[in-house]
Amino acid sequence: MRRRILLDCDPGHDDAIALLLAHGNPDIELVAVTTVMGNQTLEKVTRNALSVARVAGITGIPFAAGSARPFVRAIETAPAIHGESGLDGPRLPEPRLALDQRHAVNLIIETIMSNEPGAITLVPTGALTNIALAARMEPRIVERVREVVLMGGGTHGGNWSATAEFNIVVDPEAAHIVFNESWPLTQIPIDVTHQALATPDVVERFAALGTTPARFVVELLDFFGAAYRTAQGFDAPPVHDPCAVAYVIDPSIFTVRRAPISVELVGALTTGMTVADFRSPAPDGCTTQVAVGIDTARFWDLVVDAVKRIGEPG
Amino acid sequence: MRRRILLDCDPGHDDAIALLLAHGNPDIELVAVTTVMGNQTLEKVTRNALSVARVAGITGIPFAAGSARPFVRAIETAPAIHGESGLDGPRLPEPRLALDQRHAVNLIIETIMSNEPGAITLVPTGALTNIALAARMEPRIVERVREVVLMGGGTHGGNWSATAEFNIVVDPEAAHIVFNESWPLTQIPIDVTHQALATPDVVERFAALGTTPARFVVELLDFFGAAYRTAQGFDAPPVHDPCAVAYVIDPSIFTVRRAPISVELVGALTTGMTVADFRSPAPDGCTTQVAVGIDTARFWDLVVDAVKRIGEPG
Amino acid sequence: MRRRILLDCDPGHDDAIALLLAHGNPDIELVAVTTVMGNQTLEKVTRNALSVARVAGITGIPFAAGSARPFVRAIETAPAIHGESGLDGPRLPEPRLALDQRHAVNLIIETIMSNEPGAITLVPTGALTNIALAARMEPRIVERVREVVLMGGGTHGGNWSATAEFNIVVDPEAAHIVFNESWPLTQIPIDVTHQALATPDVVERFAALGTTPARFVVELLDFFGAAYRTAQGFDAPPVHDPCAVAYVIDPSIFTVRRAPISVELVGALTTGMTVADFRSPAPDGCTTQVAVGIDTARFWDLVVDAVKRIGEPG
Amino acid sequence: MRRRILLDCDPGHDDAIALLLAHGNPDIELVAVTTVMGNQTLEKVTRNALSVARVAGITGIPFAAGSARPFVRAIETAPAIHGESGLDGPRLPEPRLALDQRHAVNLIIETIMSNEPGAITLVPTGALTNIALAARMEPRIVERVREVVLMGGGTHGGNWSATAEFNIVVDPEAAHIVFNESWPLTQIPIDVTHQALATPDVVERFAALGTTPARFVVELLDFFGAAYRTAQGFDAPPVHDPCAVAYVIDPSIFTVRRAPISVELVGALTTGMTVADFRSPAPDGCTTQVAVGIDTARFWDLVVDAVKRIGEPG
Repeated sequence: MRRRILLDCDPGHDDAIALLLAHGNPDIELVAVTTVMGNQTLEKVTRNALSVARVAGITGIPFAAGSARPFVRAIETAPAIHGESGLDGPRLPEPRLALDQRHAVNLIIETIMSNEPGAITLVPTGALTNIALAARMEPRIVERVREVVLMGGGTHGGNWSATAEFNIVVDPEAAHIVFNESWPLTQIPIDVTHQALATPDVVERFAALGTTPARFVVELLDFFGAAYRTAQGFDAPPVHDPCAVAYVIDPSIFTVRRAPISVELVGALTTGMTVADFRSPAPDGCTTQVAVGIDTARFWDLVVDAVKRIGEPG
Repeated sequence: MRRRILLDCDPGHDDAIALLLAHGNPDIELVAVTTVMGNQTLEKVTRNALSVARVAGITGIPFAAGSARPFVRAIETAPAIHGESGLDGPRLPEPRLALDQRHAVNLIIETIMSNEPGAITLVPTGALTNIALAARMEPRIVERVREVVLMGGGTHGGNWSATAEFNIVVDPEAAHIVFNESWPLTQIPIDVTHQALATPDVVERFAALGTTPARFVVELLDFFGAAYRTAQGFDAPPVHDPCAVAYVIDPSIFTVRRAPISVELVGALTTGMTVADFRSPAPDGCTTQVAVGIDTARFWDLVVDAVKRIGEPG
Repeated sequence: MRRRILLDCDPGHDDAIALLLAHGNPDIELVAVTTVMGNQTLEKVTRNALSVARVAGITGIPFAAGSARPFVRAIETAPAIHGESGLDGPRLPEPRLALDQRHAVNLIIETIMSNEPGAITLVPTGALTNIALAARMEPRIVERVREVVLMGGGTHGGNWSATAEFNIVVDPEAAHIVFNESWPLTQIPIDVTHQALATPDVVERFAALGTTPARFVVELLDFFGAAYRTAQGFDAPPVHDPCAVAYVIDPSIFTVRRAPISVELVGALTTGMTVADFRSPAPDGCTTQVAVGIDTARFWDLVVDAVKRIGEPG
Repeated sequence: MRRRILLDCDPGHDDAIALLLAHGNPDIELVAVTTVMGNQTLEKVTRNALSVARVAGITGIPFAAGSARPFVRAIETAPAIHGESGLDGPRLPEPRLALDQRHAVNLIIETIMSNEPGAITLVPTGALTNIALAARMEPRIVERVREVVLMGGGTHGGNWSATAEFNIVVDPEAAHIVFNESWPLTQIPIDVTHQALATPDVVERFAALGTTPARFVVELLDFFGAAYRTAQGFDAPPVHDPCAVAYVIDPSIFTVRRAPISVELVGALTTGMTVADFRSPAPDGCTTQVAVGIDTARFWDLVVDAVKRIGEPG
């Protein structure tokens, strides 16, 4: 049986690839897509999500827009990494899907509550504002989801400050809520996603597919690679968000470690840091774990395979 | 034309009297009531609100339950002031109204958006969790409300710490949002409500009315007076929440001062403090003001009159 | 018997007048003067102290320079209030006294420990860096001083932020230490010193004395008045620091209230705020009190009298 | 020419071994020893330092007591690791050296200022209170020391909280000062010292020496090993403090990485964390570096050799 996931994202180059992976992989049933400001404004990332849906041939599921700003803090976006559109590089096709009129938070709640208990896996790949609001608006979702598998945070260092990763630092209060609720939660931090690099041979595998979606991926990676080279000195771009989807598909690709994890809200140097406490074995009942290793080859096999399966949606 | 208000409350003895004032006063049209945890748990204050509705004869408007806990912090209630039920003292009648099935946040949003711009005044008399969530879920409400008139905070000292008042300290992040949005906002702080004391002559005026709602008020004030005497050394109980409703009815009862106001989120001694900056004249475009004086006699006249008008709802 | 005081200051116009009051008043024995950065850099305020000593005819006691910066935070000075020299206005005479070679902190410790217990009153009128360092370097001074009477902080609002006064906010960690040690401490906050205004009639009284020190005071007040008018909109300048000396001379000039007082170190809006807890009667053993009222006429009588007694030191 | 070091410590089992290494190694000239509260109270660690001096035969240099408590925070000690005496295990001989009457802070300042520039290396192996106070009392020491080589902090996790190491968390404000001054500074964090384990073969090497100091080391390690096993689940105790001395003797034993390093002062989860920013190459003029690797075999060779050279001091 396929795993039903709701993807909460802010496309974003790597979010776009996460969408393709979720749509193309046969073990995943993508039941809804919600958006949240982050890599760019809500308006831009929502349009991007719909454009990617057209590229990938995603139809028949609701896409809903969510939070236009973090709960407490001022909005911050990442144009140096994702460009002015949030998805610079490829030409973005005009969306064909119409946006669901519900707020993402209400769609999240209704999706979880209308499916049987344990059916829905939440996969957030952006700031956690929507997920936190949903948990506060309808606390019963916490017991009803199967698990939360999120991309965000850094165990041993950040990318937006010395200690904080972008998705978390954009809305640390929301992240604090999500990490501290009692649902099973797997964190895919940058320690791991910085190993999921789209090296030239990876790009070449997509190019070799020859389809429109594959060309789209190549163009995304071209821009993304150049941006990461300039902004953070990477040789090849780390493709963060599909790692969370990959974990849902096949957890054995990752090494994980169980530990209490929380989020620093008030540090001068550490606000937005995810703090995992590795000092002792995780206490009984600890529901949080963090990925500490990844089998990069198998990860890329999954992504290439999904894009190949998507074929030419027309 | 009557002022349409949505009362967001956590009854609570003084919230109950605020409900009576809003219902009985001829210049107010109470269009909806929402509840939020605070003086007691959400379940208790929601039931209390419905019981008060029966006492007061409020029908035909939606009552909806909202946030069961603050956004970020752990829940804190005030049994030492409001008792185990949140409304200890009188016998609480079984509610007759059925709860609206919408979440308070959605009801707040729909009420504001379905009325014409400038029609709805929000009157929060509890923690600001629902109001903040509504402003984040639907940012357009901020321009659409007429104003926010809230009871909470303290300009020169607190009641829950040396600097913080209960309604604010219960959910400081929510309060920070509400005070920093661009809507016109009037703060009725404890500096003023501590002058709205239900002294024996005030209690006597209610007793003299002889009706069931009046007796209910007397019984509320008996318990409330004893609780405030024990917990905080007051000779007579300060009846905070109706002050916010009274301001909507007749602002001339209050002296106000315009100033930027925000909420401290991270102090060791000051978390939850409302900080008004009185150092210079308020800057152009300042949308926040704080009550600094009250005509207590006229305030009580309003409340007694409202209870009298309610009569015997039967 | 005269009260022996050590004045720790950052002259500073009002510090200079505090020096004149301490030197001219017959009930005070000024035993040492120490300096601390604040109104200007350590180098400037130290030279200013020595210049004032020459104007006032102070000889035979040690003057020692202390902390050039706050303990943790970056240095901040107040040129908008005190000018580039820290004592702009009058021509400053070349000092005749040589600086004591000890660090102010060591001089404070040695002065207290070499006098009998209960002999020395510390009168800080600047940032509390030296006093805090002395209390940490030699904890026994805490039990040995008679009391600490300091000018700083604000009970109901600040001057350097909405909540913080300059002397405290310059080094909040030091202030936190001084307020939390077990010595008897009297705080003279700006709530009171903002009533000690050098109105034209006060200035006239100094002018009428006709001496060099009196002319010096008039010139100080001319500059100080203009600066306060421009920077903070005052009609006449508040002369803060001599209030602390006046309290030592005659506490009956002030109304005080006993309460626990501490200093906020980590607030976003409140760092450097002095927090007095007035919610209940001060607990047994509370060693801190704050001035809440001043008899301004008697205050100025003391200062004018002191300057008159100094006469023409030659 | 031997490197002149001033050791500022809180013996403490590993501090004691650091003293032995500094005394016995021929490339080090130990010029002064100062003490600071930490592993135990100031009184206890100071007596322990003098007892160790007798065991090691250290004479002719000043030992001075310093700070009895952190600058801002309450004192915290580590009896679970170091026992009630701070040096439980061996019988501690009655000290023969008399304590220098100067405060450690004044001794540190005078030692640095009376030696030629660049002569003195500060080796703090406890809380940084004394060092910070010295830098504030006499800012010129910062340019005059050769370097600071300290044991403390953790790059990727702590031992006293999930993120903070004991020496730093005891007085984070002091640590913040020391890490942010402009002197060359090498941090030896627990990431490295947790590799300097006194495994049974190491203990055996000391036992084989057969001298009184060697037996003293063995007894220290017996207690220390048991304490670390119980308190933190280690198989063999990490011997932190001698690593800092070893770095002075032979930096090639360590791999270091240059990076800006500071200390978090206000985190809810991260107060006392040392934050090294590894995101980019260290900026020009960066004066801080952190050890990231250690050659454990060569480290133990140094320590065993030093104890052997001490022989039987008699």
